[in-house]
Amino acid sequence: MKPGEKAVSEKTHLGEFELIARYFKPLATGLPGSLNLTDDAAVLDIPDGRQLVVTHDALVAGVHFLTEDTAADVAAKALRVNVSDLAAMGATPLAYTLTLALPTSGIDTDWLAAFSESLAEDQKTYGIALAGGDTVSTPGPLSVTVCALGTVAAGQALTRSGARPGDSVFVTGTIGDAALGLRVLQGGLQTLPSEHRAALVDRYRRPQPRVAAASRFVGLVHAALDVSDGLIGDLDHICAESGVEAMIDASRIPLSDAARAALETDASLLERVLTGGDDYEILFTAPPEARDALAAIGAEEGLSITEIGTIREAGGDKDRARVVVRGAGGRAMTTSATGFRHF
Amino acid sequence: MKPGEKAVSEKTHLGEFELIARYFKPLATGLPGSLNLTDDAAVLDIPDGRQLVVTHDALVAGVHFLTEDTAADVAAKALRVNVSDLAAMGATPLAYTLTLALPTSGIDTDWLAAFSESLAEDQKTYGIALAGGDTVSTPGPLSVTVCALGTVAAGQALTRSGARPGDSVFVTGTIGDAALGLRVLQGGLQTLPSEHRAALVDRYRRPQPRVAAASRFVGLVHAALDVSDGLIGDLDHICAESGVEAMIDASRIPLSDAARAALETDASLLERVLTGGDDYEILFTAPPEARDALAAIGAEEGLSITEIGTIREAGGDKDRARVVVRGAGGRAMTTSATGFRHF
Repeated sequence: MKPGEKAVSEKTHLGEFELIARYFKPLATGLPGSLNLTDDAAVLDIPDGRQLVVTHDALVAGVHFLTEDTAADVAAKALRVNVSDLAAMGATPLAYTLTLALPTSGIDTDWLAAFSESLAEDQKTYGIALAGGDTVSTPGPLSVTVCALGTVAAGQALTRSGARPGDSVFVTGTIGDAALGLRVLQGGLQTLPSEHRAALVDRYRRPQPRVAAASRFVGLVHAALDVSDGLIGDLDHICAESGVEAMIDASRIPLSDAARAALETDASLLERVLTGGDDYEILFTAPPEARDALAAIGAEEGLSITEIGTIREAGGDKDRARVVVRGAGGRAMTTSATGFRHF
Repeated sequence: MKPGEKAVSEKTHLGEFELIARYFKPLATGLPGSLNLTDDAAVLDIPDGRQLVVTHDALVAGVHFLTEDTAADVAAKALRVNVSDLAAMGATPLAYTLTLALPTSGIDTDWLAAFSESLAEDQKTYGIALAGGDTVSTPGPLSVTVCALGTVAAGQALTRSGARPGDSVFVTGTIGDAALGLRVLQGGLQTLPSEHRAALVDRYRRPQPRVAAASRFVGLVHAALDVSDGLIGDLDHICAESGVEAMIDASRIPLSDAARAALETDASLLERVLTGGDDYEILFTAPPEARDALAAIGAEEGLSITEIGTIREAGGDKDRARVVVRGAGGRAMTTSATGFRHF
């Protein structure tokens, strides 16, 4: 620690400069524009013909992750939820900045080492590098804020507002695992086999941003987002921004083996599957003629892409649900944005 | 608040969507790429031939600002310290993202209204608009994280590493006011006239990023940064990154009337002036032949630009101070990065 510099963490006795040099500079070495984190800001090239895509999400301990989550889990979640937002726009990741608010007495060097190692692994996976940021101490809980930058071909970003009547509704991967994983962490689903419980928890703790597949959706799909508020709530966002309605079949929702096993023990968990958040799969609409191209992308990327419903014109009634779910047993169900009601 | 949505603040009973719609959407209307804050990320154009400049700084209540600071002061400081980082690189502001961590019970709608009005004013002043962000609740203190984006002509960003022996050292505006303003807020400098005390406090609470002048420094100056760690500490950063040493004259440090009055009551405050942070003036080095051009920029922008010293080659001795200050009365003084020692 330099003379006069205050320790960011009482436990580590590291000053901000030393902490950055030891744990974060190595994450910036692959990015010349990061200027090794020694300058006021980073300077990045945006290739001609590409637009910048920028997103900013914060995670607070006890609110967005569990206080018992490991440093590696926290790092992965903080970076991946932002990378997933880039994926939702069809963008290719470029760089990110990081603000770490460290509780004055709660963080040690082991934690910091595991945190930065986890980021280093994810940087390789997602083709992104650290461009800068800030490390501050706080009397409050640990919080991690990431601003992620990506690029997309000019005018080609996927948005929520492009869904059209006649589109099919698709979703990548499987739905509901993260919400069920959180329930496991809260003490539920005790009768499930342990490998299923572990799989669900992993899906909650380690989102898998669908960057590679989603960047290939550009030009092919009409509207997209990543599932973070729950399948129904997020489909409602698309419908609201596009001025349309959606009808989906509960029986076509793609489920993992673990989620299927959970539903077999308790059918009422379907509500949690449909409305729970944090899956970070890509939910999108595309014209039916895109099916073959989408199937090819799914096969090449090793990612299931499932058609779960259709988009139709909005009715005139403002109080009418924008998203209607047809139940597994042929029952009709209706939902509001985040609520869920059988009738 | 939508059904199922949790209130971000117990006091306002506003959900995140409603809070964003009411207070933050209006800040994004001037920026088409913000997509009205309804999408996962913003999509921004970076003109051909320009590079992206990105910086990320967080402010935590009780650490980076005083808990009694007004909402307008907090908003101004959070945005301006980031805009100042853009200025330090010679960049022109483009957009910013904002993460607001609101204490669950501490924020009311008056606070949010004043906060967003203050941002709206600053957006006009600095030519920047809100592109997106995140609003979260926290059991900890209020914190405000801004990621600011700007652009600069490709290859022309001002950095800390370009200082050369023979350069002159310059600084904009006046130095030490913010540190003395903080002392006033802590109960000090009671004998100063109230208008001087108010002027110093204002400088602490409301940084004035030197965007307009600094963007004109591009191509003219060799190294630059904004003074946030204190004049000596920041000049030491330039010397360290450039591999040079600096010699400055304490008598040439530009002082406001208020700071001059404070030094007349207590000459030992000079140390605070030289090592206190938060002035957010631009400290830079340029060849002596740039003097006339710099004087013209200063005159046109209504901003004093003062030559305070020179850059010389680094000595071989690693323990030697990189920044040497010549005292007002002809005394020699030496300093370390943030310490300060008479001899």
